[in-house]
Amino acid sequence: MDKTQSYIQTNKDRFLNELIDLLKIPSISADPAYSKDVHATADAVAESLRKAGADVVEVCPTAGYPIVYGEKIINPELPTVLVYGHYDVQPADPIELWDSPPFEPVIKKTAIHPEGAIFARGACDDKGQMYMHVKAFEAMVASGELSCNVKFMIEGEEEVGSSNLAIFVKENKEKLKADVILVSDTGILSNDTPSITTGLRGLSYVEVEVTGPNRDLHSGLYGGAVANPVNILCQMIASLHDENNHITIPGFYDKVDELSRDERDEMGRAPFSHEKYCEALDIADTHGEKGYTTMERASIRPTLDVNGIWGGYTGEGAKTVIASKAYAKISMRLVPRQVSDEITELFQKHFESIAPKSVKVKVKPHHGGEAAVTPIDSEEYKAASMAMEKGFGKKPIPIRSGGSIPIVALFEKELGLKTMLMGFGLDSDAIHSPNEHYGVFNYFKGIETIPYFYHYYSELKK
Amino acid sequence: MDKTQSYIQTNKDRFLNELIDLLKIPSISADPAYSKDVHATADAVAESLRKAGADVVEVCPTAGYPIVYGEKIINPELPTVLVYGHYDVQPADPIELWDSPPFEPVIKKTAIHPEGAIFARGACDDKGQMYMHVKAFEAMVASGELSCNVKFMIEGEEEVGSSNLAIFVKENKEKLKADVILVSDTGILSNDTPSITTGLRGLSYVEVEVTGPNRDLHSGLYGGAVANPVNILCQMIASLHDENNHITIPGFYDKVDELSRDERDEMGRAPFSHEKYCEALDIADTHGEKGYTTMERASIRPTLDVNGIWGGYTGEGAKTVIASKAYAKISMRLVPRQVSDEITELFQKHFESIAPKSVKVKVKPHHGGEAAVTPIDSEEYKAASMAMEKGFGKKPIPIRSGGSIPIVALFEKELGLKTMLMGFGLDSDAIHSPNEHYGVFNYFKGIETIPYFYHYYSELKK
Repeated sequence: MDKTQSYIQTNKDRFLNELIDLLKIPSISADPAYSKDVHATADAVAESLRKAGADVVEVCPTAGYPIVYGEKIINPELPTVLVYGHYDVQPADPIELWDSPPFEPVIKKTAIHPEGAIFARGACDDKGQMYMHVKAFEAMVASGELSCNVKFMIEGEEEVGSSNLAIFVKENKEKLKADVILVSDTGILSNDTPSITTGLRGLSYVEVEVTGPNRDLHSGLYGGAVANPVNILCQMIASLHDENNHITIPGFYDKVDELSRDERDEMGRAPFSHEKYCEALDIADTHGEKGYTTMERASIRPTLDVNGIWGGYTGEGAKTVIASKAYAKISMRLVPRQVSDEITELFQKHFESIAPKSVKVKVKPHHGGEAAVTPIDSEEYKAASMAMEKGFGKKPIPIRSGGSIPIVALFEKELGLKTMLMGFGLDSDAIHSPNEHYGVFNYFKGIETIPYFYHYYSELKK
Repeated sequence: MDKTQSYIQTNKDRFLNELIDLLKIPSISADPAYSKDVHATADAVAESLRKAGADVVEVCPTAGYPIVYGEKIINPELPTVLVYGHYDVQPADPIELWDSPPFEPVIKKTAIHPEGAIFARGACDDKGQMYMHVKAFEAMVASGELSCNVKFMIEGEEEVGSSNLAIFVKENKEKLKADVILVSDTGILSNDTPSITTGLRGLSYVEVEVTGPNRDLHSGLYGGAVANPVNILCQMIASLHDENNHITIPGFYDKVDELSRDERDEMGRAPFSHEKYCEALDIADTHGEKGYTTMERASIRPTLDVNGIWGGYTGEGAKTVIASKAYAKISMRLVPRQVSDEITELFQKHFESIAPKSVKVKVKPHHGGEAAVTPIDSEEYKAASMAMEKGFGKKPIPIRSGGSIPIVALFEKELGLKTMLMGFGLDSDAIHSPNEHYGVFNYFKGIETIPYFYHYYSELKK
């Protein structure tokens, strides 16, 4: 793969500038105000695939944002890699906490990234990681070293639940036929410690609304006599965990498998410093379910977190009001065998049942997805592991992640394909947060490593 | 007082139009963006006092918004009435729930107000009620029937804690010398059932901030392992009430006097229908401290209410984030003998003590004030009662209110003066809420009734 690697070295500046251009388009799928930009991003991705050497490129319309499809079939006898990624990004707020505007990318050096990191919304999640595949593909085509057929499926609704992707996949099984799905939307432990994500948590996301009186009330005249929806919502949320931080929703743990002592011990071998973890987050202590380590709490155990809460007066100064309504967005991370729709239903039933008579409660399901686990004895895992070892000079550690990529379970169900999660981000990249960034090192390490995956995968499939 | 009453009847249209003009200025004291408007309102009030016949009118600067002072001393031998009111208003949000713009007053008929009500922020609280005094004064001066000296003190920071009024009062004791303070910033039970507020609750208002990690985190990667400030804030708030809705802050009830059975029975005679109360608010049930009736909970018992809460993602759609910070505004209504500063300190100490080690907590006191009680055997109460009886044709009922006018305790302490609360609003006026309004009937009933107070008060003081 020398020609490929040398092509990459020669074109580094252009590869970086092209990513920066892509990051300038605010493709926020959650906010309809950015609809035009999301569409423009889809077109830009399609154009980049064409230029990279794809023979077929389509911007496939859906009921929501389009899916960019591209392919290059060099020989039907060879294995086919289906690359999945997403071109949409998370909202940028709280905007005031960004040190530079989220859609005006800048490269700055940091302690972790002495070679610089690209600061922009989507730099890591997932424009930067998705674009590595486009550039690796370009390099392999240009150097004549492409050893597999390639298909691309880049969607624009990952951050809002991928509901149209599910329909697209179901309706295009023939078109999407492949041997494996390759995704970079996860991370490595550190730039010195490569790792591969072998497990993902599922997700159930709901929005709740608690209504008390039919209008905002003066807290002096009504305070103490009328249920305050904010207080009630707090009580209801508080009651969802017990004193050991177990979730109290009846049936919630019914399908949660306890890992064996051996498996937990194996996981425990990943390097972890409680002190450094707390220091990096500026917290005095971690906090979670009794009986589990921090890494276990963040990967093999299900969770319930409030992602947003609002109600009453939130402006400057003081207003003595009892709000008519209070709201919260709540998500639950799920582990293998927990079914997203079932958990959503259990939540809804329970949350409605604990509401006092003095308020009304609505639960609105947002989106969900199932957990997934990748076996480490598969050809795709071996290929990924060898590619990472070649790229980093070190054998990667297999780890279970706490995040969710719900489409992984979908791909397995609909296409019968395993998904290989070969991501290059870092925990510190602040994805979904202000000042999201992606190391320049990581971007190029990804572009350099991906061709090795194709190489080893085609070797192993011979 | 026939000449005064006939002057009022002749000038009704003008009196209404002048109030409407005053309501057009958005004098929101809590939001610095409206600073110019608050100042403009002070000038407009000063001008109206000059026109009404005040001999001295001053717009007195303070460290915040000015206090409008006016006086007419007709004879040093006669008793002096000091009128207090405020020209600032509450913020208008949630603005989207207003049926008409909050600062474009319109008169609309409602079931309770067949003669129409003025819909605007401040229509009742307190521009409308304050302005009744200016117009009653004008009528008495114009008709030569003013029987007392009059002083006006109209402030612009009532909705944000009156901290500069306190300084002004302390520094101007001679100027403010009077026999009684007269205020219209409360209400009556209904337009058929006049009443006078004889008790007010005190207030302690704080803002709390809970900080978890130093930045927003991805809830998949960190969920379950790191304290989520929103969940923690909910737990902390929930724990402030026990299962009987008693407040759990140690020492909170130490100075709360239990009323005697007789007093509670007397209060219980005020007409009250649980069914109608719930119907008016569209709630299935009331909610409050065990062992007390709805009216007791809203008047003689202290409370703790969240007035606003916010944290995390509150925009459209779903964002899987663990916020770095969560906030709440919390107010406590206090009863006689509870001291606002002491309660604020108890709250602060307790709230900090219940925070888990995994978060940091800040408590910022906003403003406070003490509770007050008016004896019903005083000359001012008798004069007010007789005036209301003359105005409404029915003897008013003395009632304890749940609201707070912290300056009442201040006036007693600094000026040695009792405050007579003769308000004309209704519970349904939606003060502090969207669609605040004030009955045209109530506005004129106030203007007509106030001169009788001056009349009877000067008679009783002879």
